[in-house]
Amino acid sequence: MKRSVFYISDRTGITAEMLGQALLPQFDGFEFEEATLPYIDNEEAAREAVNRINAAAVADGTPPLVFDTMVRAELRAIIRESNSIVMDMFQMFVPHLEEALGAQCQYRVGKAHSMDNLGQYESRIDAVNFALNNDDGAITKYYEQAELILVGVSRSGKTPTSLYLAMQFGIRVANYPITEEDLESPSLPKPLRPFRDKLFGLTINPDRLQQIRSERRANSRYASLEQCRMEVKEVEGIYQRENIRYLDTTSRSVEEIATKILAAVGIKRHH
Amino acid sequence: MKRSVFYISDRTGITAEMLGQALLPQFDGFEFEEATLPYIDNEEAAREAVNRINAAAVADGTPPLVFDTMVRAELRAIIRESNSIVMDMFQMFVPHLEEALGAQCQYRVGKAHSMDNLGQYESRIDAVNFALNNDDGAITKYYEQAELILVGVSRSGKTPTSLYLAMQFGIRVANYPITEEDLESPSLPKPLRPFRDKLFGLTINPDRLQQIRSERRANSRYASLEQCRMEVKEVEGIYQRENIRYLDTTSRSVEEIATKILAAVGIKRHH
Repeated sequence: MKRSVFYISDRTGITAEMLGQALLPQFDGFEFEEATLPYIDNEEAAREAVNRINAAAVADGTPPLVFDTMVRAELRAIIRESNSIVMDMFQMFVPHLEEALGAQCQYRVGKAHSMDNLGQYESRIDAVNFALNNDDGAITKYYEQAELILVGVSRSGKTPTSLYLAMQFGIRVANYPITEEDLESPSLPKPLRPFRDKLFGLTINPDRLQQIRSERRANSRYASLEQCRMEVKEVEGIYQRENIRYLDTTSRSVEEIATKILAAVGIKRHH
Repeated sequence: MKRSVFYISDRTGITAEMLGQALLPQFDGFEFEEATLPYIDNEEAAREAVNRINAAAVADGTPPLVFDTMVRAELRAIIRESNSIVMDMFQMFVPHLEEALGAQCQYRVGKAHSMDNLGQYESRIDAVNFALNNDDGAITKYYEQAELILVGVSRSGKTPTSLYLAMQFGIRVANYPITEEDLESPSLPKPLRPFRDKLFGLTINPDRLQQIRSERRANSRYASLEQCRMEVKEVEGIYQRENIRYLDTTSRSVEEIATKILAAVGIKRHH
Protein backbone atom coordinates (compact mmCIF):
# COMPACT_ATOMS: atom_id res chain seq x y z
CA MET A 1 0.00 0.00 0.00
CA LYS A 2 1.33 3.37 -1.00
CA ARG A 3 1.75 6.05 1.68
CA SER A 4 3.29 9.45 1.11
CA VAL A 5 5.80 10.66 3.68
CA PHE A 6 6.98 14.25 4.03
CA TYR A 7 10.05 15.38 5.93
CA ILE A 8 9.59 19.04 6.83
CA SER A 9 12.22 21.26 8.34
CA ASP A 10 13.18 24.91 8.62
CA ARG A 11 16.73 23.82 7.83
CA THR A 12 18.34 20.84 6.09
CA GLY A 13 15.71 18.18 6.85
CA ILE A 14 18.40 15.65 7.71
CA THR A 15 17.17 14.99 11.25
CA ALA A 16 13.59 14.45 10.06
CA GLU A 17 14.80 12.01 7.38
CA MET A 18 16.86 10.10 9.94
CA LEU A 19 13.84 9.68 12.19
CA GLY A 20 11.59 8.45 9.40
CA GLN A 21 14.25 6.13 8.06
CA ALA A 22 14.77 4.62 11.51
CA LEU A 23 11.05 4.06 12.10
CA LEU A 24 9.30 3.34 8.79
CA PRO A 25 11.23 0.16 7.81
CA GLN A 26 9.68 -1.40 10.93
CA PHE A 27 6.28 -1.42 9.19
CA ASP A 28 5.63 -4.07 6.55
CA GLY A 29 3.40 -3.94 3.51
CA PHE A 30 3.80 -0.26 2.67
CA GLU A 31 5.46 1.49 -0.18
CA PHE A 32 6.56 4.77 1.37
CA GLU A 33 6.96 7.59 -1.11
CA GLU A 34 9.27 10.06 0.60
CA ALA A 35 9.77 13.74 -0.13
CA THR A 36 11.88 16.21 1.84
CA LEU A 37 10.75 19.83 2.11
CA PRO A 38 13.74 21.68 3.60
CA TYR A 39 14.12 25.37 4.48
CA ILE A 40 10.42 25.84 5.26
CA ASP A 41 11.08 28.94 7.36
CA ASN A 42 8.19 31.28 6.65
CA GLU A 43 4.40 31.17 6.51
CA GLU A 44 4.18 31.17 2.75
CA ALA A 45 6.54 28.20 2.43
CA ALA A 46 4.59 26.39 5.16
CA ARG A 47 1.31 26.96 3.31
CA GLU A 48 2.85 25.65 0.09
CA ALA A 49 3.96 22.56 2.01
CA VAL A 50 0.38 22.12 3.24
CA ASN A 51 -0.84 22.27 -0.36
CA ARG A 52 1.61 19.56 -1.39
CA ILE A 53 0.61 17.38 1.56
CA ASN A 54 -3.09 17.82 0.82
CA ALA A 55 -2.59 17.01 -2.86
CA ALA A 56 -0.82 13.78 -1.87
CA ALA A 57 -3.66 12.97 0.55
CA VAL A 58 -6.14 13.25 -2.30
CA ALA A 59 -3.97 11.26 -4.72
CA ASP A 60 -3.29 8.50 -2.17
CA GLY A 61 -6.81 8.48 -0.75
CA THR A 62 -5.27 8.51 2.72
CA PRO A 63 -3.47 11.12 4.84
CA PRO A 64 0.33 11.29 4.41
CA LEU A 65 2.76 10.94 7.30
CA VAL A 66 4.70 14.07 8.18
CA PHE A 67 7.94 14.13 10.18
CA ASP A 68 8.36 17.70 11.31
CA THR A 69 11.45 19.20 12.99
CA MET A 70 10.51 22.86 12.58
CA VAL A 71 11.36 25.06 15.53
CA ARG A 72 8.73 27.80 15.23
CA ALA A 73 5.41 26.85 16.82
CA GLU A 74 3.39 29.04 14.44
CA LEU A 75 4.81 27.20 11.41
CA ARG A 76 4.21 23.83 13.00
CA ALA A 77 0.62 24.90 13.64
CA ILE A 78 0.19 25.62 9.92
CA ILE A 79 1.51 22.16 9.02
CA ARG A 80 -0.90 20.57 11.49
CA GLU A 81 -3.79 22.11 9.56
CA SER A 82 -2.97 19.81 6.63
CA ASN A 83 -4.74 16.52 6.05
CA SER A 84 -1.93 14.42 7.51
CA ILE A 85 -0.60 12.61 10.55
CA VAL A 86 2.17 14.74 12.01
CA MET A 87 5.09 13.37 14.03
CA ASP A 88 6.43 16.53 15.56
CA MET A 89 9.89 16.09 17.07
CA PHE A 90 9.73 19.15 19.31
CA GLN A 91 6.24 18.39 20.55
CA MET A 92 7.22 14.81 21.34
CA PHE A 93 10.44 15.45 23.21
CA VAL A 94 10.43 18.98 24.58
CA PRO A 95 7.97 18.62 27.49
CA HIS A 96 9.96 15.63 28.73
CA LEU A 97 13.29 17.44 28.31
CA GLU A 98 12.08 20.66 29.94
CA GLU A 99 10.97 18.70 32.96
CA ALA A 100 14.20 16.72 33.14
CA LEU A 101 16.41 19.79 32.82
CA GLY A 102 14.24 22.20 34.75
CA ALA A 103 14.83 24.67 31.92
CA GLN A 104 12.96 26.16 28.98
CA CYS A 105 13.50 25.15 25.39
CA GLN A 106 14.73 28.24 23.54
CA TYR A 107 13.19 27.34 20.17
CA ARG A 108 15.99 28.94 18.17
CA VAL A 109 16.05 28.18 14.45
CA GLY A 110 19.08 26.54 12.89
CA LYS A 111 20.84 24.71 15.67
CA ALA A 112 21.12 21.31 13.97
CA HIS A 113 23.82 20.91 11.30
CA SER A 114 24.82 24.53 11.61
CA MET A 115 28.27 26.03 12.06
CA ASP A 116 27.36 27.14 15.57
CA ASN A 117 30.33 25.39 17.01
CA LEU A 118 32.82 26.70 14.47
CA GLY A 119 35.88 24.96 15.91
CA GLN A 120 34.13 21.61 15.85
CA TYR A 121 32.82 22.19 12.34
CA GLU A 122 36.23 23.15 11.01
CA SER A 123 37.81 20.09 12.56
CA ARG A 124 35.36 17.94 10.58
CA ILE A 125 36.35 19.63 7.32
CA ASP A 126 40.02 19.37 8.29
CA ALA A 127 39.49 15.67 8.91
CA VAL A 128 37.95 15.24 5.44
CA ASN A 129 40.93 16.97 3.88
CA PHE A 130 43.28 14.83 5.97
CA ALA A 131 41.53 11.66 4.78
CA LEU A 132 41.79 12.79 1.14
CA ASN A 133 45.45 13.79 1.44
CA ASN A 134 46.38 10.55 3.19
CA ASP A 135 44.33 8.18 1.09
CA ASP A 136 45.64 5.00 -0.48
CA GLY A 137 49.18 5.08 0.90
CA ALA A 138 50.59 7.53 -1.63
CA ILE A 139 51.84 9.77 1.17
CA THR A 140 52.84 8.23 4.49
CA LYS A 141 54.74 11.07 6.14
CA TYR A 142 51.76 12.49 8.06
CA TYR A 143 50.85 9.25 9.88
CA GLU A 144 52.07 10.87 13.09
CA GLN A 145 49.04 13.18 12.88
CA ALA A 146 46.52 10.40 12.21
CA GLU A 147 44.24 9.13 14.97
CA LEU A 148 43.68 5.91 13.05
CA ILE A 149 45.26 4.18 10.05
CA LEU A 150 43.05 1.74 8.17
CA VAL A 151 44.83 -1.06 6.34
CA GLY A 152 43.55 -3.78 4.01
CA VAL A 153 43.77 -5.17 0.50
CA SER A 154 42.60 -3.10 -2.46
CA ARG A 155 38.79 -2.58 -2.49
CA SER A 156 38.14 -3.80 1.04
CA GLY A 157 36.39 -0.53 2.00
CA LYS A 158 39.17 1.69 3.36
CA THR A 159 38.44 4.94 1.49
CA PRO A 160 34.67 5.27 2.08
CA THR A 161 35.19 4.31 5.74
CA SER A 162 37.95 6.92 6.19
CA LEU A 163 35.79 9.62 4.63
CA TYR A 164 32.76 8.71 6.70
CA LEU A 165 34.75 8.75 9.95
CA ALA A 166 36.06 12.19 9.00
CA MET A 167 32.79 13.71 7.81
CA GLN A 168 30.51 12.34 10.53
CA PHE A 169 32.82 12.20 13.54
CA GLY A 170 35.73 14.53 12.74
CA ILE A 171 38.31 11.78 13.12
CA ARG A 172 41.63 12.03 11.27
CA VAL A 173 42.05 8.77 9.40
CA ALA A 174 44.76 7.73 6.95
CA ASN A 175 44.53 4.55 4.94
CA TYR A 176 47.17 2.26 3.46
CA PRO A 177 46.54 -0.49 0.91
CA ILE A 178 48.32 -3.77 1.57
CA THR A 179 49.55 -4.74 -1.90
CA GLU A 180 50.78 -8.03 -3.28
CA GLU A 181 54.31 -6.70 -2.88
CA ASP A 182 53.68 -6.00 0.82
CA LEU A 183 52.33 -9.53 1.21
CA GLU A 184 55.61 -11.04 0.03
CA SER A 185 57.14 -10.06 3.34
CA PRO A 186 55.71 -11.79 6.42
CA SER A 187 55.90 -8.63 8.54
CA LEU A 188 54.22 -5.24 8.52
CA PRO A 189 54.94 -2.85 5.63
CA LYS A 190 57.68 -0.50 6.73
CA PRO A 191 55.71 2.80 6.76
CA LEU A 192 53.25 1.23 9.20
CA ARG A 193 55.71 -0.14 11.75
CA PRO A 194 56.08 2.99 13.92
CA PHE A 195 52.28 3.30 14.18
CA ARG A 196 51.22 -0.17 15.25
CA ASP A 197 48.81 1.23 17.88
CA LYS A 198 46.90 3.24 15.29
CA LEU A 199 46.37 0.38 12.85
CA PHE A 200 43.02 -1.21 12.19
CA GLY A 201 42.60 -3.91 9.55
CA LEU A 202 39.71 -4.47 7.18
CA THR A 203 39.00 -7.80 5.61
CA ILE A 204 36.33 -9.05 3.24
CA ASN A 205 34.88 -12.25 1.88
CA PRO A 206 36.95 -13.27 -1.21
CA ASP A 207 33.85 -13.93 -3.35
CA ARG A 208 32.53 -10.46 -2.61
CA LEU A 209 35.98 -8.98 -3.26
CA GLN A 210 36.12 -10.71 -6.63
CA GLN A 211 32.75 -9.20 -7.50
CA ILE A 212 33.82 -5.67 -6.51
CA ARG A 213 37.17 -5.92 -8.31
CA SER A 214 35.50 -7.31 -11.43
CA GLU A 215 33.40 -4.17 -11.72
CA ARG A 216 36.65 -2.26 -11.87
CA ARG A 217 38.82 -4.57 -14.01
CA ALA A 218 36.85 -7.48 -15.40
CA ASN A 219 38.72 -10.71 -16.20
CA SER A 220 42.02 -9.43 -14.78
CA ARG A 221 44.31 -11.41 -12.53
CA TYR A 222 43.61 -8.67 -9.95
CA ALA A 223 39.91 -9.61 -9.97
CA SER A 224 40.35 -13.39 -10.10
CA LEU A 225 38.93 -15.44 -7.25
CA GLU A 226 42.29 -17.15 -6.77
CA GLN A 227 44.06 -13.80 -6.32
CA CYS A 228 41.34 -12.47 -3.99
CA ARG A 229 41.51 -15.63 -1.86
CA MET A 230 45.28 -15.43 -1.63
CA GLU A 231 45.37 -11.75 -0.67
CA VAL A 232 42.64 -12.08 1.95
CA LYS A 233 44.27 -15.14 3.50
CA GLU A 234 47.69 -13.48 3.63
CA VAL A 235 46.43 -10.18 5.02
CA GLU A 236 44.45 -11.94 7.76
CA GLY A 237 47.65 -13.82 8.57
CA ILE A 238 49.44 -10.50 9.05
CA TYR A 239 46.63 -9.16 11.27
CA GLN A 240 46.81 -12.24 13.47
CA ARG A 241 50.60 -12.46 13.71
CA GLU A 242 50.98 -8.74 14.32
CA ASN A 243 48.04 -8.50 16.73
CA ILE A 244 46.17 -5.96 14.64
CA ARG A 245 42.48 -5.66 15.39
CA TYR A 246 40.37 -6.23 12.32
CA LEU A 247 36.83 -6.35 11.01
CA ASP A 248 35.07 -8.12 8.16
CA THR A 249 33.37 -5.47 6.01
CA THR A 250 31.29 -7.94 3.95
CA SER A 251 27.57 -7.04 4.21
CA ARG A 252 28.24 -4.14 6.57
CA SER A 253 27.34 -0.58 5.66
CA VAL A 254 29.96 2.15 5.95
CA GLU A 255 28.10 3.50 9.02
CA GLU A 256 28.34 0.10 10.68
CA ILE A 257 32.00 -0.39 9.77
CA ALA A 258 32.89 3.09 11.06
CA THR A 259 31.04 2.80 14.37
CA LYS A 260 32.29 -0.77 14.99
CA ILE A 261 35.88 0.41 14.52
CA LEU A 262 35.45 3.32 16.94
CA ALA A 263 33.88 1.02 19.51
CA ALA A 264 36.72 -1.51 19.10
CA VAL A 265 39.59 0.96 19.40
CA GLY A 266 37.92 3.19 21.96
CA ILE A 267 38.25 6.45 20.00
CA LYS A 268 35.57 8.90 21.15
CA ARG A 269 33.33 10.39 18.50
CA HIS A 270 34.07 14.11 18.28
CA HIS A 271 30.63 15.60 18.69
CA MET B 1 25.75 23.02 34.82
CA LYS B 2 27.14 19.68 33.73
CA ARG B 3 24.73 16.99 32.55
CA SER B 4 25.78 13.61 31.19
CA VAL B 5 24.03 12.42 28.04
CA PHE B 6 24.08 8.85 26.77
CA TYR B 7 23.14 7.75 23.27
CA ILE B 8 22.21 4.08 23.41
CA SER B 9 21.55 1.88 20.42
CA ASP B 10 21.60 -1.76 19.38
CA ARG B 11 23.35 -0.60 16.20
CA THR B 12 25.42 2.42 15.20
CA GLY B 13 23.91 5.03 17.56
CA ILE B 14 23.79 7.60 14.76
CA THR B 15 20.03 8.19 14.94
CA ALA B 16 20.16 8.68 18.71
CA GLU B 17 23.02 11.17 18.35
CA MET B 18 21.12 13.10 15.68
CA LEU B 19 18.10 13.43 17.96
CA GLY B 20 20.12 14.66 20.90
CA GLN B 21 22.11 17.04 18.76
CA ALA B 22 18.92 18.51 17.32
CA LEU B 23 17.31 19.00 20.73
CA LEU B 24 19.97 19.74 23.34
CA PRO B 25 21.38 22.96 21.81
CA GLN B 26 17.93 24.46 22.45
CA PHE B 27 18.66 24.44 26.20
CA ASP B 28 20.97 27.10 27.59
CA GLY B 29 23.25 26.98 30.59
CA PHE B 30 24.24 23.32 30.40
CA GLU B 31 27.48 21.64 29.58
CA PHE B 32 26.36 18.36 28.05
CA GLU B 33 28.90 15.57 28.33
CA GLU B 34 27.95 13.13 25.59
CA ALA B 35 28.85 9.45 25.26
CA THR B 36 27.59 7.00 22.66
CA LEU B 37 27.09 3.36 23.61
CA PRO B 38 26.52 1.54 20.30
CA TYR B 39 25.86 -2.15 19.64
CA ILE B 40 24.05 -2.72 22.95
CA ASP B 41 22.30 -5.82 21.67
CA ASN B 42 22.19 -8.20 24.62
CA GLU B 43 21.26 -8.17 28.32
CA GLU B 44 24.82 -8.12 29.59
CA ALA B 45 25.72 -5.10 27.47
CA ALA B 46 22.53 -3.35 28.57
CA ARG B 47 23.39 -3.97 32.24
CA GLU B 48 26.89 -2.59 31.68
CA ALA B 49 25.32 0.49 30.12
CA VAL B 50 23.12 0.86 33.21
CA ASN B 51 26.23 0.73 35.40
CA ARG B 52 27.87 3.51 33.37
CA ILE B 53 24.71 5.63 33.52
CA ASN B 54 24.39 5.13 37.26
CA ALA B 55 28.06 5.98 37.82
CA ALA B 56 27.54 9.24 35.91
CA ALA B 57 24.42 9.97 37.96
CA VAL B 58 26.47 9.67 41.15
CA ALA B 59 29.36 11.73 39.77
CA ASP B 60 27.06 14.47 38.44
CA GLY B 61 24.72 14.43 41.42
CA THR B 62 21.81 14.38 38.97
CA PRO B 63 20.32 11.78 36.60
CA PRO B 64 21.80 11.67 33.07
CA LEU B 65 19.71 12.04 29.94
CA VAL B 66 19.46 8.94 27.79
CA PHE B 67 18.45 8.91 24.12
CA ASP B 68 17.55 5.33 23.34
CA THR B 69 16.84 3.85 19.89
CA MET B 70 17.02 0.19 20.85
CA VAL B 71 14.47 -2.05 19.17
CA ARG B 72 14.07 -4.83 21.73
CA ALA B 73 11.58 -3.97 24.48
CA GLU B 74 13.34 -6.16 27.08
CA LEU B 75 16.62 -4.25 26.59
CA ARG B 76 14.86 -0.89 26.77
CA ALA B 77 13.25 -2.05 30.01
CA ILE B 78 16.70 -2.72 31.46
CA ILE B 79 17.89 0.78 30.49
CA ARG B 80 14.81 2.29 32.14
CA GLU B 81 15.88 0.70 35.44
CA SER B 82 18.87 3.07 35.50
CA ASN B 83 18.89 6.34 37.41
CA SER B 84 18.25 8.46 34.33
CA ILE B 85 15.68 10.26 32.23
CA VAL B 86 15.09 8.17 29.14
CA MET B 87 13.93 9.57 25.78
CA ASP B 88 12.89 6.40 24.03
CA MET B 89 12.42 6.87 20.28
CA PHE B 90 10.28 3.79 19.76
CA GLN B 91 8.10 4.47 22.78
CA MET B 92 7.55 8.06 21.64
CA PHE B 93 6.67 7.44 18.01
CA VAL B 94 5.43 3.88 17.60
CA PRO B 95 1.94 4.16 19.15
CA HIS B 96 1.26 7.17 16.94
CA LEU B 97 2.62 5.44 13.84
CA GLU B 98 0.77 2.18 14.50
CA GLU B 99 -2.48 4.06 14.76
CA ALA B 100 -1.77 6.11 11.63
CA LEU B 101 -0.79 3.09 9.55
CA GLY B 102 -3.20 0.59 11.07
CA ALA B 103 -0.28 -1.83 11.25
CA GLN B 104 2.04 -3.30 13.86
CA CYS B 105 5.63 -2.22 14.36
CA GLN B 106 7.81 -5.26 13.63
CA TYR B 107 10.59 -4.36 16.07
CA ARG B 108 13.32 -5.85 13.92
CA VAL B 109 16.89 -5.05 14.93
CA GLY B 110 19.21 -3.36 12.49
CA LYS B 111 16.99 -1.52 10.04
CA ALA B 112 18.65 1.90 10.30
CA HIS B 113 21.96 2.39 8.48
CA SER B 114 22.01 -1.22 7.36
CA MET B 115 22.59 -2.65 3.91
CA ASP B 116 18.98 -3.82 3.77
CA ASN B 117 18.42 -2.05 0.53
CA LEU B 118 21.59 -3.28 -1.14
CA GLY B 119 21.02 -1.52 -4.47
CA GLN B 120 20.53 1.81 -2.73
CA TYR B 121 23.54 1.26 -0.49
CA GLU B 122 25.79 0.36 -3.41
CA SER B 123 24.69 3.42 -5.31
CA ARG B 124 25.85 5.59 -2.37
CA ILE B 125 29.29 3.94 -2.42
CA ASP B 126 29.40 4.25 -6.22
CA ALA B 127 28.58 7.93 -5.84
CA VAL B 128 31.46 8.40 -3.36
CA ASN B 129 33.83 6.74 -5.81
CA PHE B 130 32.47 8.88 -8.61
CA ALA B 131 33.06 12.04 -6.56
CA LEU B 132 36.64 10.96 -5.80
CA ASN B 133 37.40 10.03 -9.41
CA ASN B 134 35.93 13.27 -10.75
CA ASP B 135 37.32 15.62 -8.14
CA ASP B 136 39.14 18.84 -8.92
CA GLY B 137 38.82 18.82 -12.70
CA ALA B 138 41.69 16.41 -13.36
CA ILE B 139 39.38 14.16 -15.39
CA THR B 140 36.47 15.69 -17.27
CA LYS B 141 35.47 12.88 -19.60
CA TYR B 142 32.81 11.36 -17.31
CA TYR B 143 30.75 14.55 -16.89
CA GLU B 144 28.04 12.92 -19.02
CA GLN B 145 27.43 10.56 -16.07
CA ALA B 146 27.31 13.31 -13.43
CA GLU B 147 24.00 14.50 -12.00
CA LEU B 148 25.63 17.72 -10.88
CA ILE B 149 28.93 19.52 -11.52
CA LEU B 150 30.06 21.95 -8.83
CA VAL B 151 32.28 24.79 -9.96
CA GLY B 152 34.10 27.50 -8.04
CA VAL B 153 37.51 28.94 -7.25
CA SER B 154 40.05 26.90 -5.32
CA ARG B 155 38.99 26.30 -1.67
CA SER B 156 35.41 27.46 -2.02
CA GLY B 157 34.05 24.16 -0.66
CA LYS B 158 33.58 21.97 -3.75
CA THR B 159 35.20 18.74 -2.56
CA PRO B 160 33.58 18.32 0.88
CA THR B 161 30.20 19.24 -0.64
CA SER B 162 30.60 16.69 -3.45
CA LEU B 163 31.54 13.97 -0.99
CA TYR B 164 28.67 14.80 1.35
CA LEU B 165 26.13 14.76 -1.48
CA ALA B 166 27.46 11.36 -2.52
CA MET B 167 27.70 9.79 0.93
CA GLN B 168 24.43 11.09 2.36
CA PHE B 169 22.18 11.23 -0.69
CA GLY B 170 23.81 8.97 -3.30
CA ILE B 171 24.14 11.75 -5.83
CA ARG B 172 26.84 11.59 -8.50
CA VAL B 173 28.70 14.88 -8.32
CA ALA B 174 31.81 16.00 -10.21
CA ASN B 175 33.62 19.20 -9.38
CA TYR B 176 35.73 21.56 -11.46
CA PRO B 177 37.97 24.32 -10.08
CA ILE B 178 37.79 27.62 -11.93
CA THR B 179 41.45 28.64 -12.12
CA GLU B 180 43.07 31.96 -12.86
CA GLU B 181 43.70 30.71 -16.38
CA ASP B 182 40.00 29.97 -16.84
CA LEU B 183 39.19 33.47 -15.59
CA GLU B 184 41.22 35.06 -18.38
CA SER B 185 38.50 34.08 -20.79
CA PRO B 186 35.11 35.74 -20.27
CA SER B 187 33.19 32.55 -21.08
CA LEU B 188 32.77 29.14 -19.54
CA PRO B 189 35.79 26.80 -19.44
CA LYS B 190 35.54 24.50 -22.43
CA PRO B 191 35.02 21.15 -20.58
CA LEU B 192 31.95 22.65 -18.89
CA ARG B 193 30.20 24.03 -21.96
CA PRO B 194 28.27 20.90 -22.97
CA PHE B 195 26.96 20.51 -19.41
CA ARG B 196 25.56 23.93 -18.65
CA ASP B 197 22.38 22.44 -17.11
CA LYS B 198 24.34 20.43 -14.56
CA LEU B 199 26.48 23.31 -13.33
CA PHE B 200 26.14 24.85 -9.90
CA GLY B 201 28.51 27.56 -8.71
CA LEU B 202 29.97 28.07 -5.25
CA THR B 203 31.22 31.42 -4.08
CA ILE B 204 32.71 32.65 -0.82
CA ASN B 205 33.56 35.85 1.00
CA PRO B 206 37.10 36.93 -0.10
CA ASP B 207 38.26 37.54 3.49
CA ARG B 208 37.23 34.04 4.48
CA LEU B 209 38.84 32.64 1.34
CA GLN B 210 42.09 34.38 2.20
CA GLN B 211 42.00 32.83 5.65
CA ILE B 212 41.40 29.31 4.28
CA ARG B 213 44.06 29.64 1.58
CA SER B 214 46.57 31.04 4.10
CA GLU B 215 46.31 27.85 6.13
CA ARG B 216 47.42 26.01 3.04
CA ARG B 217 50.02 28.38 1.58
CA ALA B 218 50.76 31.27 3.91
CA ASN B 219 51.99 34.55 2.40
CA SER B 220 51.59 33.30 -1.17
CA ARG B 221 50.06 35.32 -3.99
CA TYR B 222 47.42 32.53 -4.09
CA ALA B 223 46.39 33.42 -0.52
CA SER B 224 46.60 37.20 -0.85
CA LEU B 225 43.44 39.19 -0.26
CA GLU B 226 43.90 40.95 -3.58
CA GLN B 227 44.01 37.66 -5.47
CA CYS B 228 41.04 36.24 -3.54
CA ARG B 229 39.00 39.38 -4.25
CA MET B 230 39.83 39.27 -7.94
CA GLU B 231 39.00 35.57 -8.36
CA VAL B 232 35.70 35.82 -6.47
CA LYS B 233 34.63 38.89 -8.43
CA GLU B 234 35.51 37.28 -11.77
CA VAL B 235 33.86 33.96 -11.00
CA GLU B 236 30.65 35.65 -9.84
CA GLY B 237 30.74 37.57 -13.11
CA ILE B 238 30.83 34.30 -15.02
CA TYR B 239 27.93 32.89 -12.99
CA GLN B 240 25.83 35.95 -13.73
CA ARG B 241 26.68 36.23 -17.44
CA GLU B 242 26.25 32.51 -18.02
CA ASN B 243 23.11 32.20 -15.90
CA ILE B 244 24.62 29.63 -13.53
CA ARG B 245 22.84 29.26 -10.23
CA TYR B 246 25.21 29.81 -7.32
CA LEU B 247 25.44 29.88 -3.55
CA ASP B 248 27.66 31.65 -1.03
CA THR B 249 29.29 28.99 1.17
CA THR B 250 30.63 31.43 3.78
CA SER B 251 29.33 30.48 7.27
CA ARG B 252 27.32 27.57 5.92
CA SER B 253 28.00 23.99 6.98
CA VAL B 254 28.50 21.31 4.35
CA GLU B 255 25.06 19.89 5.23
CA GLU B 256 23.48 23.27 4.60
CA ILE B 257 25.36 23.84 1.34
CA ALA B 258 24.45 20.35 0.08
CA THR B 259 20.74 20.59 0.93
CA LYS B 260 20.44 24.16 -0.40
CA ILE B 261 21.92 23.06 -3.73
CA LEU B 262 19.52 20.13 -4.03
CA ALA B 263 16.57 22.37 -3.22
CA ALA B 264 17.74 24.95 -5.79
CA VAL B 265 18.30 22.54 -8.66
CA GLY B 266 15.41 20.23 -7.80
CA ILE B 267 17.44 17.01 -7.63
CA LYS B 268 15.61 14.50 -5.43
CA ARG B 269 17.54 12.99 -2.56
CA HIS B 270 18.02 9.28 -3.28
CA HIS B 271 16.71 7.73 -0.10
